[in-house]
Amino acid sequence: MKDLIKGELKKFTPEQLKSLCAEARRTIYETVSVCGGHLSSNLGAVELTVALHRVFDFPTDKIIFDVGHQCYTHKLLSGRAGKFSTLRREGGISGFPKREESEYDCYDTGHAGTAISAALGIAKARDLKGESFSVIAVVGDGSFQNGLIYEALNSLKILNTSILIILNDNGMSISPTVGGAHEVFEELKAEKPLEDVALLEHFGLRYLGPVNGNDLDELLPVLETAKEQLKKGTVLLHTVTRKGQGYPFSENAPMQTHGVGPKVTASEYSRALGEELTSLAGRDDRIVAVTAAMTDSLGLRGFFEAFPERAFDVGICEEHASVLCASLASQGMKPYYAIYSTFLQRAFDEIIHDVCGQDLPVVFCIDRAGATGADGETHQGIFDLSYLSFIPNLAIGIPKNIAEFRKMLSFSVGYMHPLAIRYPREGTEGECISFEFGKFEVLHSTMSDIVILAAGERCLKLAEEVRDGLIAQCNVDCSIVNARFLKPLDEELLSSRRESLIVTIEDNVRTGGLGEKIASFYRNSGRTVLSFGYDEKLLPHAEVSSLMEKYGLGVQNIIGEIKKYAGR
Amino acid sequence: MKDLIKGELKKFTPEQLKSLCAEARRTIYETVSVCGGHLSSNLGAVELTVALHRVFDFPTDKIIFDVGHQCYTHKLLSGRAGKFSTLRREGGISGFPKREESEYDCYDTGHAGTAISAALGIAKARDLKGESFSVIAVVGDGSFQNGLIYEALNSLKILNTSILIILNDNGMSISPTVGGAHEVFEELKAEKPLEDVALLEHFGLRYLGPVNGNDLDELLPVLETAKEQLKKGTVLLHTVTRKGQGYPFSENAPMQTHGVGPKVTASEYSRALGEELTSLAGRDDRIVAVTAAMTDSLGLRGFFEAFPERAFDVGICEEHASVLCASLASQGMKPYYAIYSTFLQRAFDEIIHDVCGQDLPVVFCIDRAGATGADGETHQGIFDLSYLSFIPNLAIGIPKNIAEFRKMLSFSVGYMHPLAIRYPREGTEGECISFEFGKFEVLHSTMSDIVILAAGERCLKLAEEVRDGLIAQCNVDCSIVNARFLKPLDEELLSSRRESLIVTIEDNVRTGGLGEKIASFYRNSGRTVLSFGYDEKLLPHAEVSSLMEKYGLGVQNIIGEIKKYAGR
Repeated sequence: MKDLIKGELKKFTPEQLKSLCAEARRTIYETVSVCGGHLSSNLGAVELTVALHRVFDFPTDKIIFDVGHQCYTHKLLSGRAGKFSTLRREGGISGFPKREESEYDCYDTGHAGTAISAALGIAKARDLKGESFSVIAVVGDGSFQNGLIYEALNSLKILNTSILIILNDNGMSISPTVGGAHEVFEELKAEKPLEDVALLEHFGLRYLGPVNGNDLDELLPVLETAKEQLKKGTVLLHTVTRKGQGYPFSENAPMQTHGVGPKVTASEYSRALGEELTSLAGRDDRIVAVTAAMTDSLGLRGFFEAFPERAFDVGICEEHASVLCASLASQGMKPYYAIYSTFLQRAFDEIIHDVCGQDLPVVFCIDRAGATGADGETHQGIFDLSYLSFIPNLAIGIPKNIAEFRKMLSFSVGYMHPLAIRYPREGTEGECISFEFGKFEVLHSTMSDIVILAAGERCLKLAEEVRDGLIAQCNVDCSIVNARFLKPLDEELLSSRRESLIVTIEDNVRTGGLGEKIASFYRNSGRTVLSFGYDEKLLPHAEVSSLMEKYGLGVQNIIGEIKKYAGR
Repeated sequence: MKDLIKGELKKFTPEQLKSLCAEARRTIYETVSVCGGHLSSNLGAVELTVALHRVFDFPTDKIIFDVGHQCYTHKLLSGRAGKFSTLRREGGISGFPKREESEYDCYDTGHAGTAISAALGIAKARDLKGESFSVIAVVGDGSFQNGLIYEALNSLKILNTSILIILNDNGMSISPTVGGAHEVFEELKAEKPLEDVALLEHFGLRYLGPVNGNDLDELLPVLETAKEQLKKGTVLLHTVTRKGQGYPFSENAPMQTHGVGPKVTASEYSRALGEELTSLAGRDDRIVAVTAAMTDSLGLRGFFEAFPERAFDVGICEEHASVLCASLASQGMKPYYAIYSTFLQRAFDEIIHDVCGQDLPVVFCIDRAGATGADGETHQGIFDLSYLSFIPNLAIGIPKNIAEFRKMLSFSVGYMHPLAIRYPREGTEGECISFEFGKFEVLHSTMSDIVILAAGERCLKLAEEVRDGLIAQCNVDCSIVNARFLKPLDEELLSSRRESLIVTIEDNVRTGGLGEKIASFYRNSGRTVLSFGYDEKLLPHAEVSSLMEKYGLGVQNIIGEIKKYAGR
């Protein structure tokens, strides 16, 4: 697909617009097949995006895509078609809106529920500056479960401005949409909107729709109407789209094609979580599983099928899920809350007060920890060790492989305090001979004066590479320790070490995690402590190996630093 | 007021119940007058709580008070009347529900919006265990603005259990309730409930009400009805109460009497914030102020009156307020988001992605930082330095006094990146001769081999006391440095120091804040670094001075530790 000339789309005939949709759809399909990315949500939003570009004037008008993973057509129509084959590749087009990438992207998104708040802020700034343009928030029905959306809707009248909210209702988030808001949308679609619309008006919304969001003939006139009504206040346009529209395979399997990698591989740690938890729950009826709209990608489909009465997917509601776990635990249940590392950031206050403040035995199964790669800035799980490390009563485990992860899960059943276990997407089974809570494990013991403390599978692999390099480059060996608990720290082992050079490696930012904790432990001991982790930065989209190499965890960099100190 | 004998209340005549209400009301008023605490919300909830104790059987039935500050009558009726005169005093009765305090408190609360989620978890555990009791969430209309409440309501049908939600609608949170949810409640009160009730039913709620929540004769029968309907599913009972009911002074000034201290003193830092921001905004029309339902206690009433078009109170919506700030800043505005330290925990993810990820010039004015005293665990602002310290692009200032706070605010106007300024409630004006961004300030320079780096007014005062003590006890002097920026750290000054003993003092937990950062900086330097801060613990209610003394910031403890090392 070629880039359009500015203004070209405005002159297209209806037939040309339809061809454009077909071309965008084909380009998205072909690109995602190669580069990975979000398929079904983008296929569903093609006509809607083309219609918005026809009716509104970007970048003067502003558009914010909630979550942002449905922005591909927008990118194709705003000067990025020529580069679209670099989607999600290092240095290439991001899979999410990025202000740095184009003036057509006015606000970065990545997590659910921010678009209406962002649109309101942009519209309010416009009003204050006496400017005049339209601001549009495109929000999936899945995001309408999220509390942040509700908080924004609640303030429409307070802020007294005007935005266009487009509800892109495909009945799905990553999992099928669930809950009360979804049922309201279903009612509206069933053409009984009158009674519910009254309530929307209390919030300061004019309701338009429902309209078929995959049909340009329906969409274009209603968008013109919406644009006109914006002069009078905020409009909610309810569009009904079909996730995966236009590709039968994707239409029929929208969950499986929500995110598509170049090679679709199952996530090994997730699968192990599902297996272990299902097995443990068979023997212990206190065990319940809670997720926030990510059941499949967290490996819990089997658990949900085996124990439907003890499995809760509450939608994109990370805060609510945390409180639910705390309260279930307060009554003697044993909740496992499986969630991606960055999404758990949403529940930070509830982790502190509800779970840990009450010292309740909730287990946080933190998936996609460390860099995650092609999804970029908002999905890199590189802050969890920092934001969990100071929370009272919380233990933090970082398994060295899947076998150890299984051991931690078995252990967790009888552990009656809060526990977080963090692990990356991919992993190897390996073996775990000895496991003890709060204890590190010596993997290589040498007479060398250097010891590497590394946390988690990736960093232990890196530690091995560093060791091999040191031996090869300067015939210096080192011991390697599996630092499998950030909390409690194995102070007994740390005290017993005799090496003068201590090296820490973690796939978390260097601030606030393992490195600072170890450096703090050895302060005033005369030891040299070198810490390696990610730079304090939101990492862009790139392969994990490249991110490690460039942002603080490159093997040669670590070897070089160690050599400097080892030579002292 | 004396404690009731178990079951006694059930036998009371209507007249005796009314007397009980009067007695509870008088006890609350008299106790709060002496001990401080939440007055108007508790006065408003007397009849409702008495009625709940009449109709339900606690502690078999469970009750969760959202936020929790309206639980005083519940405490009086559940065996804590005799100890009630110790309210909010160290070792005495907490101003919030506490599981450790009584079996009648089943779930700790403190921040808004958790009660429905918690009630659902408790009810679900009950169902799974085959038990049978009622679970009640009492939620103020202010909390109904919060996203977490919406997330819980959204999952009612998913969780498929039964709870009683009591909407305690007094038209107020700490500030008057605002927004769309409020307008819906107003409609319901205007006796036009039918059209809106239909929507509630989609969420899985049966609506009862509105009913006068200060009238036992109205309340008792409707609670019996609600109890009966719980067998069929979740019930929302809308009670209309009057904040401050029964005390004309409090009824007429519910905001001023929301929280009452033993002596009502204005907060000095808050007042300075209001003065400076109002003055700065008069000269710079990019400046806007955003709060989450705390306008007065943050000192911003004057700003809101002077610049109503640039002042936004969005209700108890900390996440939304953060995104609003980020988006306003993305369009060239200069937002100041004033908020208490612990409440900002709710916006953690949005600080990372929306504000700092986009490197937008939002200023977080973080009030009530450090220990706050009598409100206890959920209100102690002792984690902010830890949870902010690793966030990319964020600078963190900690003024030594109000004069320096004013300088930081003036500076912030032209600073085009995210900035957090954290400060306690009380303070002194003092003076600020020299101010430079990212630079520490030497307050006492001596030839001693000891330097104390202290952050913020309280810790600098403590440093002075430590210095005085060292001089008096062992004739050892020390230098004192005002560590007024946690980020960027003044590495130039740190490198130039020649002392062998470095002492850090911060009123934050010891993990993840100033101490670990300084220890990390001096690692491998041969210096001894001693760090003092709060223990990693949720601090209970007590005077700030007592909390400092007991949990890591006692002056004699610090002196003792320094003497140990200084003697080496």
